[in-house]
Amino acid sequence: MSNTDYSTGGVRTVQAILKKTPDVGLELGDVSIITPGPRDVLVRVLKTGICGTDRHIYEWDAWASNRIKPPLVAGHEFVGIVEDTGVGVHTVGPGDRVSGEGHIGCGHCYCCRTGATHICDKVDILGVDVQGCFAPYVCLPESNIWRVDDRICDDQACLFDPFGNAMHTVMAQPISGKQVLVVGCGTIGLMAIGILAVGGVDKVIAVDPNPVKRDLAKIMGADEVLEQCDAAAVKDLTDRGGADVMLEMSGHPGAFVRAFDCVRNGGEVSLLGITTQPIPLLWSEQVIFKGLTIHGINGRRMFQTWYQCESFLRRHPDLIEPLITHRLPFDRFEEGIHAMQGGDACKVVLDWQNAKA
Amino acid sequence: MSNTDYSTGGVRTVQAILKKTPDVGLELGDVSIITPGPRDVLVRVLKTGICGTDRHIYEWDAWASNRIKPPLVAGHEFVGIVEDTGVGVHTVGPGDRVSGEGHIGCGHCYCCRTGATHICDKVDILGVDVQGCFAPYVCLPESNIWRVDDRICDDQACLFDPFGNAMHTVMAQPISGKQVLVVGCGTIGLMAIGILAVGGVDKVIAVDPNPVKRDLAKIMGADEVLEQCDAAAVKDLTDRGGADVMLEMSGHPGAFVRAFDCVRNGGEVSLLGITTQPIPLLWSEQVIFKGLTIHGINGRRMFQTWYQCESFLRRHPDLIEPLITHRLPFDRFEEGIHAMQGGDACKVVLDWQNAKA
Amino acid sequence: MSNTDYSTGGVRTVQAILKKTPDVGLELGDVSIITPGPRDVLVRVLKTGICGTDRHIYEWDAWASNRIKPPLVAGHEFVGIVEDTGVGVHTVGPGDRVSGEGHIGCGHCYCCRTGATHICDKVDILGVDVQGCFAPYVCLPESNIWRVDDRICDDQACLFDPFGNAMHTVMAQPISGKQVLVVGCGTIGLMAIGILAVGGVDKVIAVDPNPVKRDLAKIMGADEVLEQCDAAAVKDLTDRGGADVMLEMSGHPGAFVRAFDCVRNGGEVSLLGITTQPIPLLWSEQVIFKGLTIHGINGRRMFQTWYQCESFLRRHPDLIEPLITHRLPFDRFEEGIHAMQGGDACKVVLDWQNAKA
Amino acid sequence: MSNTDYSTGGVRTVQAILKKTPDVGLELGDVSIITPGPRDVLVRVLKTGICGTDRHIYEWDAWASNRIKPPLVAGHEFVGIVEDTGVGVHTVGPGDRVSGEGHIGCGHCYCCRTGATHICDKVDILGVDVQGCFAPYVCLPESNIWRVDDRICDDQACLFDPFGNAMHTVMAQPISGKQVLVVGCGTIGLMAIGILAVGGVDKVIAVDPNPVKRDLAKIMGADEVLEQCDAAAVKDLTDRGGADVMLEMSGHPGAFVRAFDCVRNGGEVSLLGITTQPIPLLWSEQVIFKGLTIHGINGRRMFQTWYQCESFLRRHPDLIEPLITHRLPFDRFEEGIHAMQGGDACKVVLDWQNAKA
Repeated sequence: MSNTDYSTGGVRTVQAILKKTPDVGLELGDVSIITPGPRDVLVRVLKTGICGTDRHIYEWDAWASNRIKPPLVAGHEFVGIVEDTGVGVHTVGPGDRVSGEGHIGCGHCYCCRTGATHICDKVDILGVDVQGCFAPYVCLPESNIWRVDDRICDDQACLFDPFGNAMHTVMAQPISGKQVLVVGCGTIGLMAIGILAVGGVDKVIAVDPNPVKRDLAKIMGADEVLEQCDAAAVKDLTDRGGADVMLEMSGHPGAFVRAFDCVRNGGEVSLLGITTQPIPLLWSEQVIFKGLTIHGINGRRMFQTWYQCESFLRRHPDLIEPLITHRLPFDRFEEGIHAMQGGDACKVVLDWQNAKA
Repeated sequence: MSNTDYSTGGVRTVQAILKKTPDVGLELGDVSIITPGPRDVLVRVLKTGICGTDRHIYEWDAWASNRIKPPLVAGHEFVGIVEDTGVGVHTVGPGDRVSGEGHIGCGHCYCCRTGATHICDKVDILGVDVQGCFAPYVCLPESNIWRVDDRICDDQACLFDPFGNAMHTVMAQPISGKQVLVVGCGTIGLMAIGILAVGGVDKVIAVDPNPVKRDLAKIMGADEVLEQCDAAAVKDLTDRGGADVMLEMSGHPGAFVRAFDCVRNGGEVSLLGITTQPIPLLWSEQVIFKGLTIHGINGRRMFQTWYQCESFLRRHPDLIEPLITHRLPFDRFEEGIHAMQGGDACKVVLDWQNAKA
Repeated sequence: MSNTDYSTGGVRTVQAILKKTPDVGLELGDVSIITPGPRDVLVRVLKTGICGTDRHIYEWDAWASNRIKPPLVAGHEFVGIVEDTGVGVHTVGPGDRVSGEGHIGCGHCYCCRTGATHICDKVDILGVDVQGCFAPYVCLPESNIWRVDDRICDDQACLFDPFGNAMHTVMAQPISGKQVLVVGCGTIGLMAIGILAVGGVDKVIAVDPNPVKRDLAKIMGADEVLEQCDAAAVKDLTDRGGADVMLEMSGHPGAFVRAFDCVRNGGEVSLLGITTQPIPLLWSEQVIFKGLTIHGINGRRMFQTWYQCESFLRRHPDLIEPLITHRLPFDRFEEGIHAMQGGDACKVVLDWQNAKA
Repeated sequence: MSNTDYSTGGVRTVQAILKKTPDVGLELGDVSIITPGPRDVLVRVLKTGICGTDRHIYEWDAWASNRIKPPLVAGHEFVGIVEDTGVGVHTVGPGDRVSGEGHIGCGHCYCCRTGATHICDKVDILGVDVQGCFAPYVCLPESNIWRVDDRICDDQACLFDPFGNAMHTVMAQPISGKQVLVVGCGTIGLMAIGILAVGGVDKVIAVDPNPVKRDLAKIMGADEVLEQCDAAAVKDLTDRGGADVMLEMSGHPGAFVRAFDCVRNGGEVSLLGITTQPIPLLWSEQVIFKGLTIHGINGRRMFQTWYQCESFLRRHPDLIEPLITHRLPFDRFEEGIHAMQGGDACKVVLDWQNAKA
């Protein structure tokens, strides 16, 4: 991929949301439009979503300051129109409406060669390791491009990435007829609830200490909501000795540990919520004797998860609509980040259609 | 099952290895032979294996003193000859050589009714919750009885239970062509190595701090041995960025944590070793970002695991022979336990053929 | 099971729907109520469904005349109340509302011991090999009894058996986000459509030459209906080169062969429809080069399928309601069979509550 | 891929084994060396294997005359040394010893994007649809190149392709502890037997009418050999009512049908042998009531199968050695084809090291 020289190479410049220097904040700044390499696709951006990751980059926390090398255009959730393609690109062309997978694999490690590119050890992530999509144009390898079905509107199409995280977490085990516990009702947890509610499960139980989130959980289709992971309560709400499936979407140490006690013997657990400190389990009692299966979830399966997202979004066009709490023009991005920081926002969508391109 | 009144009901008495009082030690003592209930099978015991669990009962540690209600006949690893059957028993009869599954499920919970009896929440365990097999006779429900193939000798047949633990751990994920790390070379870890070595894997790497165990690991077929879980060393010995599969058989907190760093992205982990304290992981780095799958392993699948054990033991009749370090008449059982305590013994087999029956 | 002597042993007699002699027809006749054996449960029947199998027995076709040994009480679909239990029965008791699995396994073959009792080679089937449920009382082994959730009404509860066939066929492969073709809209095909429609699929395409059945298919939730298996039409209605999943519910030779051409490369096929003559495939072109996976489906998984049925029926209490076209008192059973023969009926439910018991 | 103009574009010419005109035979002829495209790798060929497909092309049978467009260089099994690479190639370089996957997927269909490139609907096959490897140089896309482990000698390395067919067939279902029936002892069937024999199975039963093939089957590790698919004999040789797993490698109509009767209820079947006419099954009796699972097998999974092949070949360096019956310089290729036609040859390896390059 040639887009690492995005900000230096070309002639024409456009306004992007940039981390210019290794410090707190993001700002609008000029970057050049690059010429796509032989395998690359240049996309004119229509809409983007702001992810928690973008907020970390804004806040310049420990993770961000270790990983990010400014100058960097942030952002990895987008929908747009193909503007130009490299000479070796055959599967999409100018005018196609597309989104894209932000995990760019190395292509030759064991994971990449066995259908697990999403966990490539040398992965480059859009808007983290390479120039992102918070700009009028974004460049990605052809193999990362996803053509968007006509029945999916721009607002939902720019959220394939987080929706795909939710989908991947849900689909990591069979869910048909299952009693499912979702721990943590952040954006992705809420998306997971939406998928489960129309996905053929027996029951969805959602947990979040925040009553606003619990209300959203109900709107998304949770059958029951709880303030915290209470094993006795979950046992009462299920009839198999606990949840068949537990999705950990909080990363919160206390919830994480208690959530394991809510799972029945033989149950399955998928972990997506990012943890920031060591969390101890009583392995024998909580995992081994119970015969649990635990799945660590990262990214989206390429492209099984994308096909599943497409299927759910076109069958249920408003599935994630209740989660889009803010729609802003791109140059008011900071309002969106502040809303996220204040806990008011669920999903913020930025509109790039009036960007000078 | 009617064998809970083993020590009180019948007329004829025989000598068994008993926990008589809630205190350290086991002793020979008289118990009555019970009449099997309508669904039960009475087995004349030929040989038994001493398990680590029996040692815990002997030593009367925290686990044992909480769980065991004396008087109790210990022991759950055995081979014997059917002596008598209840009126409702149709599938075995007097003279059949049998072993038996020590996990007695409730029969009507979700796990029991969906092929996961081994993790029934209300399971009774032979020699722990009900009278065990360290006696001239043992009684089990018909559904727990396993007829032994003629090609498997008594010494190996009495070890179906621990060999089944090893088999279950190994078979919890695909192993063909895999690079497998076995952490902990106790008896069951060594059995797992034996299975892997003839099981179609790419390579077996064994870890144990004890050089005697490492030598046994080589005898059992390990390709490489390491003193400890060293991620760099494992990465060097594999060519996919780490082990495809890791079997945790030690329960040791330090090894447990380091072992996760030895697994490649997308790898699978099976946990059998019993832990006795909380063990913390850096979940994001060690499990979630890597996309690992973790299996908690308990008991043996009924009876998939038993069929697999039968297949391996009759194709490789000496597979676990190197692990039987002590053969003793039943009344010298204490020598066996002392040998285990001293670290000299691997597997101790007791002979009951001269027991007065 | 002791119910093979149903019609001879006891004192009190009741009226049942009987095949008395090896000839066409079924008639009401007196049978005795048996005393359940030590592991058996005697159930007072409330409602029963008439299955195509009962019709075959009525019509005394080649299959029936080869398999059935009169005198035989027909019927295997029921709901009722436990009346009495054998001494060894612990999990249900008088007053419990129950249905039951009609496949009675031998309990000791490889299939029975590895969680596949439904395909036991020596299976006895209720109302086929042993006395059935078209009577005021039916007797089954405890392990075949299924306690019915309060939220499921009698009319639906007596249909667990055929609904379980549909569920087993649907759940033989992952369905989330899949484009599914259902070939044949008989009762079980229609039930499958109902499951799929609320089961998280992308799209359901149903095929039947009968316009009444196609209308029912739409009522059950089919997105598209076709008169026949037309590969070009299916390709147009899907966007992956054909159906991801094909469920063959017709057994019709022509449809069977063409249906394989409607499946995309790498797709999955489940076969439930009974075939009565050899059907040829061009294996290389239709299966091998396409990399298909084919599942033969028989009965219901015990009891995974029953749990799934329970989950769907209590979440969607009217799921199969549109398929119950006839409700009749038991003594008008012949009207029901005639309606099935005429093609008017979908599901006929018989009421036994006024039977002299 | 640019190698479709192999024979026309370049300046230097070399001698290849060519189908020059649409007629019987293959001949040596001059072709030009092409310049690899930006994503391509040019390989100097060391050794090649002759496949049955090459023989079909030689014999110009119905399949060949329909599919092949002369002029075409035949051959798809090879090992060689990278000579040159396109500008976009990063993962291999000149001097690397490589083999390659002959199935060149389109890269953007559902199969290609979900890890099933081997069954891409628009696949181009090396030596069939594009210029093959029976030449001093062969050109393939980078993504099809496989770097060969040092421990695997050239003679075995040039056979990754057929060995991969065998591996894919074997690994399509779990084999650990299974009783496996291999129907048809051609080269690939014999390779499958070799894999199974060291792969952790319970028992291998091989079927072939030819006694020479049965002897080879024993050399490769079959435990039992049979002249034909005799269900009673297989039942006797197994103890679960038939084979757990059946691999159909013959394509012979009679064997194909009878082989299904040799499988136990709940067994799995993998089909690789190419059939040339419709073959009828009694589906209800042979597949549906038995609850079989059937896998159609095509090509090799990319690149799971290749990793498995690598693992087995480096752990067992002589695994397929007994099957290489002929080693010839490339210009004596016709002797090899005649030997195959005569039934004497198993695998013929051609040496290209003295080809003028």
